[in-house]
Amino acid sequence: MTETSRSFVEQAAEILGPRGFTQDSDLVTPWLTDWRGRYTGKALGLASPADTREVARLVALCAEHGVPIVPQGGNSGMSGGATPDKAGNSIILSLRRMNAIRHIDAQAKQVTCEAGVVLQTVHDEAARHRLRFPLTLGGKGSATIGGLISTNAGGTQVLRHGTMRAQVLGLEAVMANGQVLDTLTPLKKDNRGFDLKQLLIGSEGTLGIVTAATLRLLPEIGGRCVIWAGLESLSQARQLLLHCEDMAAEELEGFEVIPSHCLEAVLDHLPDARNPLAGYHAWHALIELVAEAGQVGALQPLAEDMLSSAMEQGLLEDAVIAANETQAEAFWLIRDSISPAERAIGPAMQHDISVPVATMAQFVEHASPLIEERFPGTRAVAFGHLGDGNVHFHVLAPPQAVKGEWEEGQGKEISAFVHDLVTQWDGSISAEHGIGQMKRDELGRLGDPVSLSVMRAIKDALDPRGLLNPGKLVPLAKGDLNA
Amino acid sequence: MTETSRSFVEQAAEILGPRGFTQDSDLVTPWLTDWRGRYTGKALGLASPADTREVARLVALCAEHGVPIVPQGGNSGMSGGATPDKAGNSIILSLRRMNAIRHIDAQAKQVTCEAGVVLQTVHDEAARHRLRFPLTLGGKGSATIGGLISTNAGGTQVLRHGTMRAQVLGLEAVMANGQVLDTLTPLKKDNRGFDLKQLLIGSEGTLGIVTAATLRLLPEIGGRCVIWAGLESLSQARQLLLHCEDMAAEELEGFEVIPSHCLEAVLDHLPDARNPLAGYHAWHALIELVAEAGQVGALQPLAEDMLSSAMEQGLLEDAVIAANETQAEAFWLIRDSISPAERAIGPAMQHDISVPVATMAQFVEHASPLIEERFPGTRAVAFGHLGDGNVHFHVLAPPQAVKGEWEEGQGKEISAFVHDLVTQWDGSISAEHGIGQMKRDELGRLGDPVSLSVMRAIKDALDPRGLLNPGKLVPLAKGDLNA
Repeated sequence: MTETSRSFVEQAAEILGPRGFTQDSDLVTPWLTDWRGRYTGKALGLASPADTREVARLVALCAEHGVPIVPQGGNSGMSGGATPDKAGNSIILSLRRMNAIRHIDAQAKQVTCEAGVVLQTVHDEAARHRLRFPLTLGGKGSATIGGLISTNAGGTQVLRHGTMRAQVLGLEAVMANGQVLDTLTPLKKDNRGFDLKQLLIGSEGTLGIVTAATLRLLPEIGGRCVIWAGLESLSQARQLLLHCEDMAAEELEGFEVIPSHCLEAVLDHLPDARNPLAGYHAWHALIELVAEAGQVGALQPLAEDMLSSAMEQGLLEDAVIAANETQAEAFWLIRDSISPAERAIGPAMQHDISVPVATMAQFVEHASPLIEERFPGTRAVAFGHLGDGNVHFHVLAPPQAVKGEWEEGQGKEISAFVHDLVTQWDGSISAEHGIGQMKRDELGRLGDPVSLSVMRAIKDALDPRGLLNPGKLVPLAKGDLNA
Repeated sequence: MTETSRSFVEQAAEILGPRGFTQDSDLVTPWLTDWRGRYTGKALGLASPADTREVARLVALCAEHGVPIVPQGGNSGMSGGATPDKAGNSIILSLRRMNAIRHIDAQAKQVTCEAGVVLQTVHDEAARHRLRFPLTLGGKGSATIGGLISTNAGGTQVLRHGTMRAQVLGLEAVMANGQVLDTLTPLKKDNRGFDLKQLLIGSEGTLGIVTAATLRLLPEIGGRCVIWAGLESLSQARQLLLHCEDMAAEELEGFEVIPSHCLEAVLDHLPDARNPLAGYHAWHALIELVAEAGQVGALQPLAEDMLSSAMEQGLLEDAVIAANETQAEAFWLIRDSISPAERAIGPAMQHDISVPVATMAQFVEHASPLIEERFPGTRAVAFGHLGDGNVHFHVLAPPQAVKGEWEEGQGKEISAFVHDLVTQWDGSISAEHGIGQMKRDELGRLGDPVSLSVMRAIKDALDPRGLLNPGKLVPLAKGDLNA
């Protein structure tokens, strides 16, 4: 430890107190590795401020001493965006202690909470007021509001309600110089210049550290109707989706697609899971309609009407409506178990991609055989949010592949191939998981040069010393030697 | 004209051709003054490029010669944002020639159009495909898509559909160095870094010049139900709004409030206009419910149910549902005629302000008497978009005031007073009209210093020479002497 860092550590400890700063490796180590175990770094210490004021003082201290900061929420990100690099000169700034719900206004349907509040807590708090927060995802028990905002998280309700970006009404963030940007008071209309809130959302902690947010809430759901449909192809799923949007635009909350391979993997993986339909179908759609309290009665007839007309028009092979909430949960459990079921089978390269909604089906039908032919023995599998033009495109390793080795060799080649294809199709190499450290080089390779240069200019302007989450998101300029 | 500017002019003329560049004062002069006649400037010439490539070449030329650029659409802005300053060294960059609809995809419900397309044209084009564009405002016959995006325009449908920001799926813009940022292909989910599109929306041409956009469309409306309600107070209007949101969240498209003073002014101004209700009411609400084709039948019963329960709960004094489309148009004509009717009465200071929706009624009830007391003889009048927490807060001059003089004297004092009040109430001094040159100093005086410094840093980063719409939006830093 150098003289400077010793003095920094002393002052950090003073600002944050004994609960707020530690260098104890037993306490720090768990947070040095991302939850999927793909990245491990080192850190000078773990800072856990109690409030925004402490964050601001700490960030100012870091600016003074040139100490890089890696903000961290639930550490449940998919792209290594919250894991420090190996240099060991940065601190992890955990927001987890800042877990207060500051204020909930049921009439205005808004909740203001600190960055460390876990998503499930927001759901529970909203439910207590007969409201709901319209974004959910697998990691809801650990993902924090700050992390969800910084990564502009998606999930299974984006089709109707948008990503995290659409839920944030106001934001509080600490900028690189320690100043606090406060836009927490939500104004439905405010044209006083650049929308800095939108700039911070999805910036993965590289422009500022989100410390609190005001989120929109919706009336609680009165009931839902969950449908499992068997389909012959992904193109048919796309037609079915358009049909559902036409007939139930206001009620359609989710439309997920699952290929037979994924269903079989889940049925093998979960002994209690049952195939919702009797026969074989190449593709499946999981469709959810929801209604508020007063309108639940109309759901079942709407669903039946929608399905029978779809059947008439040849938009599905078979379908079943969940008879009760238990069955609805069972349908969703299949969807939510695809990732663990696939992990149990063997190594896979997972790609979180999007293309324009209209071309998603064609893309998958084009790309899958191309990949399987180019990389013999692999299997390309797509599932997920068809309604958002976003599927999780997984390429399973050939049977003989050695876990750990394969990912670094052929796996990388496959990912580059997939990313090239997606880019050719005007798509995104990161639909909802962000860039983090995992895809930064790929973004540098494939991103639009003009976008990249604008991003770099903004990054340099707001964080001139590059202390906020270095090595994440913003690709290096050509010839730039900084790590 | 200096040597440099002569060379610039020759090259600009060469790039743009005879239809694209002129210094003819007959052609330039009409665009040197904003439509309300408040600001007049000078310009080196009027550039009217035919396509994005010409814009890019022109902007690069301006960068080379240090020539400031004032982008202009319909020249129908409210804050002087499209009017050059008096220096005469800048060019007006009119986007009006770029008025092509590039592509409409009815299935995906998207339209891609150039910046100079007039709003009404988008409405018409959408209607041809049985779709609609969910944003409208008084100036729809002249306002262009580029201008609407650059100012993040609002209008009367924000309550349900959001401002322009919510309609833009993709954007094309020329940056200060002449590079073209192209995000026109809409991806519902895309987490590849900062949302540059959102940064450009509402930046009033100070960060880049919007040349085209992809906009979302919605299914056409099958029918509407327009209600005129008489109320005792603005607080009652707020309660009625909450009631309407509870009962008709999916159908409620507009909720405008009008005080008796404004209604009377319109009735005086428009000889054919009639008061929709028989008796006197201190306040009025204009409420619109809409439904898509299949659900029109449910509108009238819903409206009746909503009004009768509101009556029972004491949330209104009287109400009438427009019997047909002609009557519905007549109700809206009253609302849309408030501004011209008021202008006919005499001078007024007009403030486009917002506060949190929940406190709007209290704010108006607090501020109006305060202003009338402080400035004897004036009359404070608020009308507009209560559902957005945004009212147009007008202060009418005392009877003896001299038009032209009063605005510059007491008028300015009144505006400062209103802006101070709004700021104390956590509100915005510009809800939907933008900052332009009109409110730049006020934003500098009252804006959050952290927001302002971040805005300045971004402006400096993306337009280091300050050539994009100088003197607009971004307040000068203290001690900054640049005009």
